[in-house]
Amino acid sequence: MSKPIFYHAGCSVCVSAEHDIINLIGKDNVEVVHLGEDRSRIMEAEQAGIQSVPALVTPSGNVLHINFGAAMADVKG
Amino acid sequence: MSKPIFYHAGCSVCVSAEHDIINLIGKDNVEVVHLGEDRSRIMEAEQAGIQSVPALVTPSGNVLHINFGAAMADVKG
Repeated sequence: MSKPIFYHAGCSVCVSAEHDIINLIGKDNVEVVHLGEDRSRIMEAEQAGIQSVPALVTPSGNVLHINFGAAMADVKG
Repeated sequence: MSKPIFYHAGCSVCVSAEHDIINLIGKDNVEVVHLGEDRSRIMEAEQAGIQSVPALVTPSGNVLHINFGAAMADVKG
């Protein structure tokens, strides 16, 4: 894994944090995954240890839960 | 405010997040404030809207609470 991955679900907290992360890290330096639109990656996010979104998984595999938008249980619906 | 400011209190969650943020943003691109050692900045952190540490305040003034190390009430002691 070479880039950090930002997982979100389109909520307002998520979108605000996405803008902040892109401004801080640079658009080309982070992969953004919308779990509401790309549900095939929910399992990957859970396996990475994500409990809520928005969250950033670092290249070393650490999970940074950023503020609180929605629990993964709600994202899974 | 030109740089983001990372506030922490020396807890293990804080130190881990500090390493991640420095790796992501670059050491020269973020100011790190240890509120346990620099208690004169606790009021500034609270006024920025920080409720727990570690937290990152963006140049635009948004607060990103990252994971959860300690509540500000505990930092204030």
